Amino acid sequence: MFPDGTAVTVDVLCEGVHFDDRLSAADVGFKAVAVSVSDLAAMGAEPERFVLAVCHPGPSHEWTQSFAEGVGEACRTFGIDLVGGDTTRASSISVGVTAFGQVVAEPLVRSGAMPGDVLYVVGWLGLAGAGYRLAEPSVAALDALRRPRPPVSFALDLARRGWASAAMDASDGPARDLPRLARASGVRVVLDPGAIPVHADLLDHAERRDLMLGAGDDYALLFTSSAPLADLDALATEHGVAVAAIGHLEAGEGAVCTDGAWPSGAWSHFGERS
Amino acid sequence: MFPDGTAVTVDVLCEGVHFDDRLSAADVGFKAVAVSVSDLAAMGAEPERFVLAVCHPGPSHEWTQSFAEGVGEACRTFGIDLVGGDTTRASSISVGVTAFGQVVAEPLVRSGAMPGDVLYVVGWLGLAGAGYRLAEPSVAALDALRRPRPPVSFALDLARRGWASAAMDASDGPARDLPRLARASGVRVVLDPGAIPVHADLLDHAERRDLMLGAGDDYALLFTSSAPLADLDALATEHGVAVAAIGHLEAGEGAVCTDGAWPSGAWSHFGERS
Repeated sequence: MFPDGTAVTVDVLCEGVHFDDRLSAADVGFKAVAVSVSDLAAMGAEPERFVLAVCHPGPSHEWTQSFAEGVGEACRTFGIDLVGGDTTRASSISVGVTAFGQVVAEPLVRSGAMPGDVLYVVGWLGLAGAGYRLAEPSVAALDALRRPRPPVSFALDLARRGWASAAMDASDGPARDLPRLARASGVRVVLDPGAIPVHADLLDHAERRDLMLGAGDDYALLFTSSAPLADLDALATEHGVAVAAIGHLEAGEGAVCTDGAWPSGAWSHFGERS
Repeated sequence: MFPDGTAVTVDVLCEGVHFDDRLSAADVGFKAVAVSVSDLAAMGAEPERFVLAVCHPGPSHEWTQSFAEGVGEACRTFGIDLVGGDTTRASSISVGVTAFGQVVAEPLVRSGAMPGDVLYVVGWLGLAGAGYRLAEPSVAALDALRRPRPPVSFALDLARRGWASAAMDASDGPARDLPRLARASGVRVVLDPGAIPVHADLLDHAERRDLMLGAGDDYALLFTSSAPLADLDALATEHGVAVAAIGHLEAGEGAVCTDGAWPSGAWSHFGERS
């Protein structure tokens, strides 16, 4: 996007849309940064800096302090620096982050998937959705909702090795994200929902499939590759994450499931026209 | 701010705070870009690119089209490119712009004003405030409110020549902005309100002084300089703008007016602690 290999991403978290009182001010601060870090990593860019735009009807000293602590914790966790910002009064809380990173090799894009490639996921799907939707979510589900930990170092090493033909983060859930990947690459995605690893806290949940495919907000990494699974596994182990093959690409268009109809996406931000 | 001479700025315009129905969707789009361009120019940076974060409860096709037209017009007016964005649902409209520019020489900063320097303004003060506050604003006042035209090319040439010891845009009005400049530079600002050029549409207005000093939203350029006025005048003429000496700097701190008490600033975004 920038001539010198700088990648940039912009994301806004809005109260009532992206978060509610399940998130503390510190959680909102942490998550706003984590969401942008996830996007940079999925582009193959090392997170470096960000600017912050905070809108608030009138924050208490406690809110501001807690928010700043969450932002600071994200800075330390992800090795990214806050370099500027704007604060303004507004009728509801929103936190915008514009983040910059340096592409480590070739950028990871959505448009490179080829027929025959395998589709992989790194990170749990549906866990943050459970944290948001369930009346009594587990500790792990709430943590996934509040403190997303995108697999940054794995994504960057994947980019360095040139093993991914396409990549994106699953921020809106595979139901909405994978058709975008298919469209960008000019291929058909064949997803095998039964192959997606299920977190223990979701095993007994009736709406598990919907949560995993449609809830979004997980910041797991989706990527396609023709590299040997053993190599990907070894790389994942090195970074303390797990990689799972959850489908493949074939000639054609769109996205299909091996176990039934393609799920409808759960989110419908007005900008989405998929 | 960035090692390679890239300047970055972030600003959010919120409905009900920064704009209301006096601005069309096109005006909001134009102004969101213009505000960031103004900030870049006042840093001595040539505007190059920006990303856009749009929050909206649910825009009509007409709103979106009008907004995009305003953004596009600003891109053409200021020679800046839209390179990315995010759209999201929210309870009220806000438009965030993070903009990037290339510093043309040394950056213009707020911290370089010296005792003995003269304080200058380029652009009308109070006109946008009249557009916002008056029951029957003039055409020029509404235009200043809706379509700010910061003196970009003048600011950049000023930076290239190294003639400004300090600079900033008057986005919050001199009443709030000048004390910041004084603090950043460690000097006292002595403002002569009677020397500020008065737009014809404000001549008969009883609250003229308050509008000019406190209303803000003008995106005029404030700068300090020890260069000869004749040189500054010639440069201004070259760029089709007018420069006016409106005060000076002296040893000390704070900001004083030659004609009475320092006016209270009109805006009070929560982030301000001046």
